[in-house]
Amino acid sequence: RYGQAETDHQIGAATGLAYTQAGGDTLSIEVSLSKGTGKLTLTGKLGDVMKESAKAAFSYIRSRTDELKIEPDFHEKYDVHIHVPEGATPKDGPSAGITMATALVSALTNRPVRKEVGMTGEITLRGRVLPIGGLKEKSLSAHRAGLTTILMPAENEKDLEEIPDSIKEDLNFVKVKHLDEVLDQALLPPNEDE
Amino acid sequence: RYGQAETDHQIGAATGLAYTQAGGDTLSIEVSLSKGTGKLTLTGKLGDVMKESAKAAFSYIRSRTDELKIEPDFHEKYDVHIHVPEGATPKDGPSAGITMATALVSALTNRPVRKEVGMTGEITLRGRVLPIGGLKEKSLSAHRAGLTTILMPAENEKDLEEIPDSIKEDLNFVKVKHLDEVLDQALLPPNEDE
Amino acid sequence: RYGQAETDHQIGAATGLAYTQAGGDTLSIEVSLSKGTGKLTLTGKLGDVMKESAKAAFSYIRSRTDELKIEPDFHEKYDVHIHVPEGATPKDGPSAGITMATALVSALTNRPVRKEVGMTGEITLRGRVLPIGGLKEKSLSAHRAGLTTILMPAENEKDLEEIPDSIKEDLNFVKVKHLDEVLDQALLPPNEDE
Amino acid sequence: RYGQAETDHQIGAATGLAYTQAGGDTLSIEVSLSKGTGKLTLTGKLGDVMKESAKAAFSYIRSRTDELKIEPDFHEKYDVHIHVPEGATPKDGPSAGITMATALVSALTNRPVRKEVGMTGEITLRGRVLPIGGLKEKSLSAHRAGLTTILMPAENEKDLEEIPDSIKEDLNFVKVKHLDEVLDQALLPPNEDE
Amino acid sequence: RYGQAETDHQIGAATGLAYTQAGGDTLSIEVSLSKGTGKLTLTGKLGDVMKESAKAAFSYIRSRTDELKIEPDFHEKYDVHIHVPEGATPKDGPSAGITMATALVSALTNRPVRKEVGMTGEITLRGRVLPIGGLKEKSLSAHRAGLTTILMPAENEKDLEEIPDSIKEDLNFVKVKHLDEVLDQALLPPNEDE
Amino acid sequence: RYGQAETDHQIGAATGLAYTQAGGDTLSIEVSLSKGTGKLTLTGKLGDVMKESAKAAFSYIRSRTDELKIEPDFHEKYDVHIHVPEGATPKDGPSAGITMATALVSALTNRPVRKEVGMTGEITLRGRVLPIGGLKEKSLSAHRAGLTTILMPAENEKDLEEIPDSIKEDLNFVKVKHLDEVLDQALLPPNEDE
Ligand SMILES: [Ca+2]
Ligand SMILES: [Ca+2]
Ligand SMILES: [Ca+2]
Ligand SMILES: [Ca+2]
Ligand SMILES: [Ca+2]
Ligand SMILES: [Ca+2]
Ligand SMILES: [Ca+2]
Ligand SMILES: [Ca+2]
Ligand SMILES: [Ca+2]
Ligand SMILES: [Ca+2]
Ligand SMILES: [Ca+2]
Ligand SMILES: [Ca+2]
Repeated sequence: RYGQAETDHQIGAATGLAYTQAGGDTLSIEVSLSKGTGKLTLTGKLGDVMKESAKAAFSYIRSRTDELKIEPDFHEKYDVHIHVPEGATPKDGPSAGITMATALVSALTNRPVRKEVGMTGEITLRGRVLPIGGLKEKSLSAHRAGLTTILMPAENEKDLEEIPDSIKEDLNFVKVKHLDEVLDQALLPPNEDE
Repeated sequence: RYGQAETDHQIGAATGLAYTQAGGDTLSIEVSLSKGTGKLTLTGKLGDVMKESAKAAFSYIRSRTDELKIEPDFHEKYDVHIHVPEGATPKDGPSAGITMATALVSALTNRPVRKEVGMTGEITLRGRVLPIGGLKEKSLSAHRAGLTTILMPAENEKDLEEIPDSIKEDLNFVKVKHLDEVLDQALLPPNEDE
Repeated sequence: RYGQAETDHQIGAATGLAYTQAGGDTLSIEVSLSKGTGKLTLTGKLGDVMKESAKAAFSYIRSRTDELKIEPDFHEKYDVHIHVPEGATPKDGPSAGITMATALVSALTNRPVRKEVGMTGEITLRGRVLPIGGLKEKSLSAHRAGLTTILMPAENEKDLEEIPDSIKEDLNFVKVKHLDEVLDQALLPPNEDE
Repeated sequence: RYGQAETDHQIGAATGLAYTQAGGDTLSIEVSLSKGTGKLTLTGKLGDVMKESAKAAFSYIRSRTDELKIEPDFHEKYDVHIHVPEGATPKDGPSAGITMATALVSALTNRPVRKEVGMTGEITLRGRVLPIGGLKEKSLSAHRAGLTTILMPAENEKDLEEIPDSIKEDLNFVKVKHLDEVLDQALLPPNEDE
Repeated sequence: RYGQAETDHQIGAATGLAYTQAGGDTLSIEVSLSKGTGKLTLTGKLGDVMKESAKAAFSYIRSRTDELKIEPDFHEKYDVHIHVPEGATPKDGPSAGITMATALVSALTNRPVRKEVGMTGEITLRGRVLPIGGLKEKSLSAHRAGLTTILMPAENEKDLEEIPDSIKEDLNFVKVKHLDEVLDQALLPPNEDE
Repeated sequence: RYGQAETDHQIGAATGLAYTQAGGDTLSIEVSLSKGTGKLTLTGKLGDVMKESAKAAFSYIRSRTDELKIEPDFHEKYDVHIHVPEGATPKDGPSAGITMATALVSALTNRPVRKEVGMTGEITLRGRVLPIGGLKEKSLSAHRAGLTTILMPAENEKDLEEIPDSIKEDLNFVKVKHLDEVLDQALLPPNEDE
């Protein structure tokens, strides 16, 4: 399934783009909520920077519950687990920040994530989207995986030049400056039937 | 007893398949529940990846208590201990994920695990079963141990080619994509007599 | 956006000046408050000295809630997250002390931070501003970023000699001895409209 | 006193057999209960495997309070301290598992441990007794210490061949598969007079 | 400001004397109290010995609240932060013990510390003052800083021989055996006007 | 003061005997109680074995409150701090066990420790006194310090041969097997006047 787009719109799971020495790869970010007391668990052999990035995404969402239509006290009523399969592969860096934020909001609002969307970008506590590295390699892997829309930091615009035209024909690159734009692009309306 | 199948269907214990430099081995995953306050203890000289895998299995189960017919607040009423004997042998990797999930569900539902079943597969927070390595060596050790059914990730189908026909005659390989299928295959109805 | 001044007066974000082997840089300090129980989270690949500096800023503010017109029990009602993007860049040293204090007070009083102000200085538990290193390099980066006012420790006055006149023409250097002066210079009146 | 059998049947203390590079040795496992809140303290320069073994013994007992006639909520009402003198000697390995379990049950049930009994065996969460190493050396040290009964894992039966007949004449080797058998052999009826 | 005496009598701040490879130095110990739940925070790049010294000072004060006229339950009602600027300079050793105790008592009793007093000495749990090293170098730095009274351990009396007469003319050396004497010498009556 | 006997019978302080590469030394063990919630703090640059020894002493006392005439719930009402000056000197080993136990019982019962008594011996959870090393060197330092009674493990009897007659004339060696004997020898009746 990895290296492929999701076959359904998923709640609580979003597709990120990773860049390693071996090239680009897609990675799935999974969020699980259970009744609890506000514990945040982060797994998937994540490095310190990636864990901090998850905490920044989490704090941003906590501070914006009104605007995001999330229960204001969700973090006291649920335990939140963010996992990034494949569990044996080390992962690090801040560029999954907006993907983790998207998966979190999806899980908390019951809004599915569009299956054809991949994304990459550091998130800040104010929801800003900061630039990332490896856009070319990430785009190639997104293409291979069958994704059709890539959400990327506006500040990475210059990196689009390096991307082959054949890829640009198939992939819709959407430049974003703030998480609000990410969520608008990536999330569907709430799923009522669970 | 190790290197052998269980002699009885056990509650709270499932048989996994490990792959080490020394070849394949079977390993027993034990789960013990006691009245408590939700503490999760992991022992048996487990590496970080294996511990994270246990947490993923645990979170998956917590988020699916309705479907699995488990008390929704079990994690607040019990302490859960997952142990993997033999305690002096280091163990790591994500491939025991579905075995840990199965032993947990068995302990929580009072459903015995079929003694003739061994299994291997990474689990994700959504219950998906991801591919693993060493299927050939694991199958040989399962055969030696007298198991007759092997639950394996569907994505490992190609690895079946490498397995000798003599083994395939004795072992029933069942390809699974989701933990639901694992539980259907591995668990018996609840044991009422305790 | 980095290497640039803020485009708006921000609540809960202040601009500091960093000095690394690669020269000077501006850095944004972000503070996020959420309903909580008093947990302080520090992220952004911060070294121990920088984390301790944040704690000193935090304790100073806690001990001066009356004078700063902050709810006396804010630290019991909110969780506070201080983050310093860019998350992959290691940061350390005590010179962001007054910037962290300013961002904290801004978030707690709803007073925006003037977007044209950058600052550098160690803070003590009594709110004193101690001298820092690299004022020249920091000033050059502040200039490049379009800032117009620099708050600097009074004890660094002698370092002004090394700064080129062309920079001094554009930058207003304000010497400060205590955080009270920093806050007077950096903060606007409370923003009422949120 | 070490290197000797106990001079009285003790409550909360059992004699194990250790195997080190220097040969076999006896070691005393002590358990102390005090009114508390369920804290488990492990001391005596114990390695990680030995600590995990203690936790497995503890969880087994917690999950079997009914059968063992122990107060079901003992772990919430007492703090439990397991100590292995001599405090300067490093100790590790899983083979003291059944000894720790026996000392714990003794302390919790007020049943003295027979002073002439030594034991060795790994314990699992289901109370099974797994094989250990160094039975020969352990037996020699048990003999020197004046013990007369050795409880050993049934799976170690083959190792009895290596033990000199002179030792076998003095020592009664009892093969055990489950902790229930260990407790039957090692514990006397409850001591009523404290 | 460092390397200088305080310009005012301070509440919650006392001047210690440090001895490093680079010679002697004065250092300021700051204490901040905020409403809280008894947390003790120690910052300023302090080594383990210096942190333990702070804990000893803290415990001594907690055990002597009656004699010191401190609220008996202060440690449950306040969080206490002890900070030693300059935050980037590593500091260690037990000789700041009495300085930390003095700053703590000052903060807890609202009694200012005389600005002309510097001090050095290890503290024990019984309030005894133990000898320290580097008295000569410490005295030179105290002199440079404009201090006029030095509180020193009585057991260091012999070290006074090494101190130049020119220094002895300006500095009043007061030998102390117990913290009671330190507090008598260093603290002014309570400041009523806050 | 170190290297000397106490000048008064102290409550909450006992004199131990240490053995280092530099020879023997006396060391003072201090115990401070403050109203609290049962926290045990151990300071004085203590190694792991010495910390575990303190915990064993503490657990022994907790389990024997009736016999020792100590409030049964003392560990819930007080915080206990054990400190071993001089804070910069590393200390380790189990031989201060009975000294720590004695200082603890002294503090908890208000019974002064005889100032002329020094002691050495490992303690177990059952209050047994185990043998130690360096009795000769310890005795010489005790003699130098002006102590007149040494409590030593009965199992170290053979080591008395090595001690010079001139020392034996001045020092009264008392062999002990259990902490009860230590307390009988070392403690005076309760001090009523505080
Ligand atoms: Ca992949
Ligand atoms: Ca809000
Ligand atoms: Ca095996
Ligand atoms: Ca559910
Ligand atoms: Ca930058
Ligand atoms: Ca105030
Ligand atoms: Ca021994
Ligand atoms: Ca039961
Ligand atoms: Ca200085
Ligand atoms: Ca008192
Ligand atoms: Ca000494
Ligand atoms: Ca008792």
